[in-house]
Amino acid sequence: MRIGMVGLGKMGGNMAERLRRGGHEVVGYDRDPSISDVGTLKELVDRLEAPRAVWVMVPAGEPTRATVAELGELLDRDDVIIDGGNSHYVDDQRHAGELGAKGVGFVDVGVSGGVWGLENGYALMAGGDAAHIQRLMPVFETLKPEGPDGFVHAGAVGAGHFAKMVHNGIEYGMMQAFAEGWELLEAADVVTDVAGAFKSWRHGTVIRSWLLDLLVRALEDDPELTQLRGYAQDSGEGRWTVQAAVDHAVPLPVITAALYARFASRQEDSPAMKMVAALRQQFGGHAVTSATSGEGAAPPPGGAA
Amino acid sequence: MRIGMVGLGKMGGNMAERLRRGGHEVVGYDRDPSISDVGTLKELVDRLEAPRAVWVMVPAGEPTRATVAELGELLDRDDVIIDGGNSHYVDDQRHAGELGAKGVGFVDVGVSGGVWGLENGYALMAGGDAAHIQRLMPVFETLKPEGPDGFVHAGAVGAGHFAKMVHNGIEYGMMQAFAEGWELLEAADVVTDVAGAFKSWRHGTVIRSWLLDLLVRALEDDPELTQLRGYAQDSGEGRWTVQAAVDHAVPLPVITAALYARFASRQEDSPAMKMVAALRQQFGGHAVTSATSGEGAAPPPGGAA
Amino acid sequence: MRIGMVGLGKMGGNMAERLRRGGHEVVGYDRDPSISDVGTLKELVDRLEAPRAVWVMVPAGEPTRATVAELGELLDRDDVIIDGGNSHYVDDQRHAGELGAKGVGFVDVGVSGGVWGLENGYALMAGGDAAHIQRLMPVFETLKPEGPDGFVHAGAVGAGHFAKMVHNGIEYGMMQAFAEGWELLEAADVVTDVAGAFKSWRHGTVIRSWLLDLLVRALEDDPELTQLRGYAQDSGEGRWTVQAAVDHAVPLPVITAALYARFASRQEDSPAMKMVAALRQQFGGHAVTSATSGEGAAPPPGGAA
Amino acid sequence: MRIGMVGLGKMGGNMAERLRRGGHEVVGYDRDPSISDVGTLKELVDRLEAPRAVWVMVPAGEPTRATVAELGELLDRDDVIIDGGNSHYVDDQRHAGELGAKGVGFVDVGVSGGVWGLENGYALMAGGDAAHIQRLMPVFETLKPEGPDGFVHAGAVGAGHFAKMVHNGIEYGMMQAFAEGWELLEAADVVTDVAGAFKSWRHGTVIRSWLLDLLVRALEDDPELTQLRGYAQDSGEGRWTVQAAVDHAVPLPVITAALYARFASRQEDSPAMKMVAALRQQFGGHAVTSATSGEGAAPPPGGAA
Repeated sequence: MRIGMVGLGKMGGNMAERLRRGGHEVVGYDRDPSISDVGTLKELVDRLEAPRAVWVMVPAGEPTRATVAELGELLDRDDVIIDGGNSHYVDDQRHAGELGAKGVGFVDVGVSGGVWGLENGYALMAGGDAAHIQRLMPVFETLKPEGPDGFVHAGAVGAGHFAKMVHNGIEYGMMQAFAEGWELLEAADVVTDVAGAFKSWRHGTVIRSWLLDLLVRALEDDPELTQLRGYAQDSGEGRWTVQAAVDHAVPLPVITAALYARFASRQEDSPAMKMVAALRQQFGGHAVTSATSGEGAAPPPGGAA
Repeated sequence: MRIGMVGLGKMGGNMAERLRRGGHEVVGYDRDPSISDVGTLKELVDRLEAPRAVWVMVPAGEPTRATVAELGELLDRDDVIIDGGNSHYVDDQRHAGELGAKGVGFVDVGVSGGVWGLENGYALMAGGDAAHIQRLMPVFETLKPEGPDGFVHAGAVGAGHFAKMVHNGIEYGMMQAFAEGWELLEAADVVTDVAGAFKSWRHGTVIRSWLLDLLVRALEDDPELTQLRGYAQDSGEGRWTVQAAVDHAVPLPVITAALYARFASRQEDSPAMKMVAALRQQFGGHAVTSATSGEGAAPPPGGAA
Repeated sequence: MRIGMVGLGKMGGNMAERLRRGGHEVVGYDRDPSISDVGTLKELVDRLEAPRAVWVMVPAGEPTRATVAELGELLDRDDVIIDGGNSHYVDDQRHAGELGAKGVGFVDVGVSGGVWGLENGYALMAGGDAAHIQRLMPVFETLKPEGPDGFVHAGAVGAGHFAKMVHNGIEYGMMQAFAEGWELLEAADVVTDVAGAFKSWRHGTVIRSWLLDLLVRALEDDPELTQLRGYAQDSGEGRWTVQAAVDHAVPLPVITAALYARFASRQEDSPAMKMVAALRQQFGGHAVTSATSGEGAAPPPGGAA
Repeated sequence: MRIGMVGLGKMGGNMAERLRRGGHEVVGYDRDPSISDVGTLKELVDRLEAPRAVWVMVPAGEPTRATVAELGELLDRDDVIIDGGNSHYVDDQRHAGELGAKGVGFVDVGVSGGVWGLENGYALMAGGDAAHIQRLMPVFETLKPEGPDGFVHAGAVGAGHFAKMVHNGIEYGMMQAFAEGWELLEAADVVTDVAGAFKSWRHGTVIRSWLLDLLVRALEDDPELTQLRGYAQDSGEGRWTVQAAVDHAVPLPVITAALYARFASRQEDSPAMKMVAALRQQFGGHAVTSATSGEGAAPPPGGAA
């Protein structure tokens, strides 16, 4: 089918390419004219036939909100906008409400796959009305990996991004579990072939997974990870997962711990630990080692901890 | 090669079977005479040829320690004992020391694979001297899964069980991450096809893994897991992982949180939360709702939390 | 000075009483006519002299929002509303904006003290313009405990409730720390006079505190806390604290763990642990103990955890 | 009464001084001859009268074990050794067993109070036989703070140090709770007088405590704690608390999180987070920002997190 694609960066560009390889006709728009098929969103809309479908693949937050608003002005009743970015599900629900007043449809799709998606396909989690999903199935079929899985109609509008959000929360927890295991193996120095242990786990173990495969690749490139700093951004979904859990009184200790480890990794010095150090200094006995002690420089017995 | 196998339960019995299918000659001993090839460990040792190899596959702790001690009495210089159970790596180091005084070798092997191992092979993590490992490679080759991975000589004695211990710690974290994601999806009720979302994640996503495959199977059998109680044992490795991390000052927030979630799952009522409830009662205002308030039964403003 | 008090429940009623004892004239309104001085908010406003001050002490959320909105209609330029409830600081900022358009002032005050406040005074954390705070100081001076502390002008509108919110987050962490220590002492059974240990800590230790005093009182009433269930509500501030921390990328492991312990205390059965149990069952070897094992009912070695 | 004191450092020296002020006769020994009353432990023992009491106040671990062993050689039946250091309770139980064979008594005392103890008294938690405790009560009465609390006979040998260990675990959790609250207040910038807020909390609030008093003192000296690094040692008791909890299957999320925060504070760069960074790099899309994206440098939508 014919579809518009807004945002031709790494994700949008590759998805447009996969769609074309699958026989679809894609009209692409990007702010960068050198990669754009059309000069304006208006022109993109004009090049599509009603009922139109426009897939938005731009950064979450303000860029997506602005794009959806502008498209809402340009589109007509029965057209549909697909937000494939990493939007918050609450934004989806607002977008659907606003567009629905005009009769324009809205579908949210959580997309997983990164740079591997062009060849392997993208896992898709969709939220929206069954009729819209039905109409877009040819596009979903092409984008998703071959085989039975890789696509779900997760529920009403918002459900696609909610499912992707939780997927990413799980991912945080899994990554941190592997990372902690690696740190312990390196620190304890009982296992002398740590990279070999991880490699061996790729078959026959309970923890075999794509993340383990990636981890083994990383250790092959740099066995002690000396080229990297212990610094990790977070993309929003982890935070939203924790905040949604708090809203619903769901305890999420592992996913939250993984998120907090990322927060801490970006601090040069922990403010909280400054306060702990200040308190220890106030007890006395910690910052200062007694000049008169006959027992050497070890912390004096009986001091607070 | 010819090898003795002590303990013919679910794991040991299947491993003996896989070894026989692979052309090895296995002399098996079990306390249950109906499945045992020999009547005593003495007889088992007599049926092997020097240098002998005896694989011990009995529960960790006292049973393994007793078995290793008895075998140590029966075996000769250059014979080797393999402990394939879930022993603590500290036990391995003690066993190796005791046996080494007599010239008997000791190899520890962490084994992963459960009931699936008979057909798919067992992932093996071995610790011990290179010469012992070398001699036992035909056995390891048969037990492990086909293909390049699934076996590692992880280091000196203790390294095999240490690697398996950390593997299980990682497994705890991964399982808990999936479990938390599932709980949030169920509680939030935004995604209406939760089982479908998990199923879709099996291809093209970052979290695809064997655990996810198992989880999808579980949800196929019982979509709301109504047949199960939220109760999980722990097998020792998770505890040892946390204790080793504390010994080495390695922060392990995710793996520890996963372990604590299991501890809590086995408490009918949390003693700690009784104390929290008691403190809230002491503030006043929490256990009792004021009969005179015109504002209804909600907690009064200004009360402590 | 003369002041209106809306909400004469446990908190508002006691605060009105403390104000009267301190020489202020309080006009009180409550939905319950038997304790109300006036029949309507309109009447309350009429009984005050410009510039008026009306203290709102009703449950946070909808009741407070409705009361503020109604008062906003009734009050004039230079009058001021004080919200002394447990409102979210974001609500304060919205209220100040709405009222400011009309020239009505807004001050938010976090109040701590519970049922003890009538006699001991209430700790007050105020947010708002310096001029409003200045005008209200006679009221704050009467409400707060005697001595140098117990009141802070924490910042602009919202700062009072933000400070109270964080106070409560800290309180959650402290309560849980005591509760965990108590649980461990009870479980380990090394200390045989647990209540005595807590009592002894009231003097000379690092952890002496009002919470410890309350805890000792609770153990005096019920040494094993057998009369209580391990069940604890949360009042909103703990959740907001965690959500604010996530917004600001501040890791808050202790306060979050304390909040999650409360969430978990309210679940009859943990959904997440059902999933962990389901996964363990899928490995095999955990739900079922082998009928053929000669090694008894212990979990088989080599099984997953 | 007459008592020997071994170790005259900051703690032991002050405790000897407090005992002398209280009318006791103290024979002190220290490796530093300039502050020692006697030249050897033999001489110290000779200066006491049977049944003797020798208080050991040297660093936990090897120094304490060596001192107890040497005293065990020198003392006679019915003499008693008091270990007032920060020993692990398991060491106590071994010491009592070894000394008991010879008829020498052993009492363990957890001591809290730091540099403030000389004037204010030391909180004491004692473990041992009732007869020994009874005989030593005059010493305990002098050392402890005035008033009804500050001393407990917590149970058999080991109970004193176990109680002190848990006290310190609770202390870790409380300190971290305050520290997290402070970090959030500083980061959010809603409360502009953070030090004032803490100061105000000293009266009338739920969290008033000695730690809060110390914290306020620290902020008075250095309002932004700019003179300190976010670095905190741990003294052993926190680790033992967590390990004891794991042994007893007691979930300890808050105390453990506080311990882990200290571990992390001592790492220049988190190894675990290097692995997380490596995994994010492997997904693609995170370390590299696309040169062709028309949407700028923000993380591309659809990437993994």
